[in-house]
Amino acid sequence: MNKVLVVGSVGYDTIETARGRRDDILGGSAVYFSLAARLLAPVAIVGVVGEDFRKSDVDLFKNAGIDTTCLQTVSGGKTFRWHGKYRADMNVRDTVSVSLNVLGDFKPRLPQTHVRTPYVFLANGSTEMQLSVLEQVKPAKSKVYFDTMDLWINTSRDGVIELLKRADGAVLNDSEAMALSGKTSIVAAGRELIRMGAKCVIVKKGEHGSIAFTGDKTLLVPAYPLEEVFDPTGAGDSYAGALMGALAAGKSLHDAVMAASVTASFTCESFGIERLVTLTVKDVKARLKTFSAMICR
Amino acid sequence: MNKVLVVGSVGYDTIETARGRRDDILGGSAVYFSLAARLLAPVAIVGVVGEDFRKSDVDLFKNAGIDTTCLQTVSGGKTFRWHGKYRADMNVRDTVSVSLNVLGDFKPRLPQTHVRTPYVFLANGSTEMQLSVLEQVKPAKSKVYFDTMDLWINTSRDGVIELLKRADGAVLNDSEAMALSGKTSIVAAGRELIRMGAKCVIVKKGEHGSIAFTGDKTLLVPAYPLEEVFDPTGAGDSYAGALMGALAAGKSLHDAVMAASVTASFTCESFGIERLVTLTVKDVKARLKTFSAMICR
Repeated sequence: MNKVLVVGSVGYDTIETARGRRDDILGGSAVYFSLAARLLAPVAIVGVVGEDFRKSDVDLFKNAGIDTTCLQTVSGGKTFRWHGKYRADMNVRDTVSVSLNVLGDFKPRLPQTHVRTPYVFLANGSTEMQLSVLEQVKPAKSKVYFDTMDLWINTSRDGVIELLKRADGAVLNDSEAMALSGKTSIVAAGRELIRMGAKCVIVKKGEHGSIAFTGDKTLLVPAYPLEEVFDPTGAGDSYAGALMGALAAGKSLHDAVMAASVTASFTCESFGIERLVTLTVKDVKARLKTFSAMICR
Repeated sequence: MNKVLVVGSVGYDTIETARGRRDDILGGSAVYFSLAARLLAPVAIVGVVGEDFRKSDVDLFKNAGIDTTCLQTVSGGKTFRWHGKYRADMNVRDTVSVSLNVLGDFKPRLPQTHVRTPYVFLANGSTEMQLSVLEQVKPAKSKVYFDTMDLWINTSRDGVIELLKRADGAVLNDSEAMALSGKTSIVAAGRELIRMGAKCVIVKKGEHGSIAFTGDKTLLVPAYPLEEVFDPTGAGDSYAGALMGALAAGKSLHDAVMAASVTASFTCESFGIERLVTLTVKDVKARLKTFSAMICR
């Protein structure tokens, strides 16, 4: 089976939403990504943690079948920490505090055993670091998708555009797609990024679903309808995880985006990774069936 | 063929958007509605205009095959006028001025020839007036759908809830659905309105599409992707027109919502009714085909 590799953050999050608060729970883009992807394909994490990383969390990865041979522990170092607070409508979140710790010096170098992974996802991180990983895996013709954020679009725009051209796909949210393209509508932004050289652009619109753009197609996928969102943290990363897992499993782009939308909806139903940890292939398949019936006549 | 009757405004609009301005152009909910509905079913307007209503606009209705026998002209009266200005992103509009004129005293009484119309749409108007029309058509077991706005939800909430329970469907935008249900998410709002006694609730989300709720179904329909919106005026009314026209033509609710989404997209591509006037069944069918391919695998 095609394997997926994710390069991203592994950390401890403190999250406050209208529904409650959790302190120092396992989080980070690579964590949400891999817990989602593992349901569809084997997955390996490339990341870094400090000495304070809990043994129980290493066990959680192992129990989930996630390859952690590229998860490096820095002796004497501290794990990445983030504290975020969502406003009442859950659509806006404020960062209360963030400590990069060991993530600040993270310069991933893939071992020979992982350089040939066929599907690679570069989660949000410095553009320089993302380009360095792209260089490492490109000789093996891996399919590379990436995420970014406004910070990098503003501070290393040329690098993000290089990544856009060289990678196989970008997974962005609506504001990032508009900022990178300079367009003020999502549809214009997606198509402009294709004209700028992207092969595939997937724009996430939160509760409004997502749109995938390729050179010749536009795919419209709603969000799975939730009456209530407990915590949207990690929704985007688990979306990307299911997307890449599905692509690695040989699904079409349309099927992969559907699976991504459904998986992200599960993430939002509990705090942090709680729901993802217990999620099964059967759960995803059952919701995909309901979802399809809501979308197609 | 099943006929559709719309009770709503007929007026002259002045519209300013980022793309330009038009003065005193034919507009009003019943106008957009009927120009959209006529492509799918025969349609009659119930409305009122003043002596200043242009002969060329009466001819426009006739050429479009719209029944205007219930469009009353008040001698000495002035036609309803509205002046609106959209902000840069087209998602918010401010009313510069509004003059109800003859619409202020509009108390529609349907003639015997029209009381038995099988599909009736009560466009936005006073709840009292909408309930009075509902009374007139209910003995004939017409299917009645309605629209409302925040003003009526705030000032005649009990009346709107009565309408919700007695009508066959409500066509609301997201903020109206949330205001009427007291819920803060669109999905929770739609389902709450069903629990409050609605048979069918269709929530319009503008560029993010729409969701239809019934007792046992949730249907998710994206918006047709437009790179640019020239003028969103009338998008909601033409959405409702195509929806009712399609239902009258025997289409399923899902097919009707798809047709509504596509028709509204044409409306946004030009100022006012410009595109709707030239729109053909062939245009709608071609775009529906493209749209379906974007949505279903």
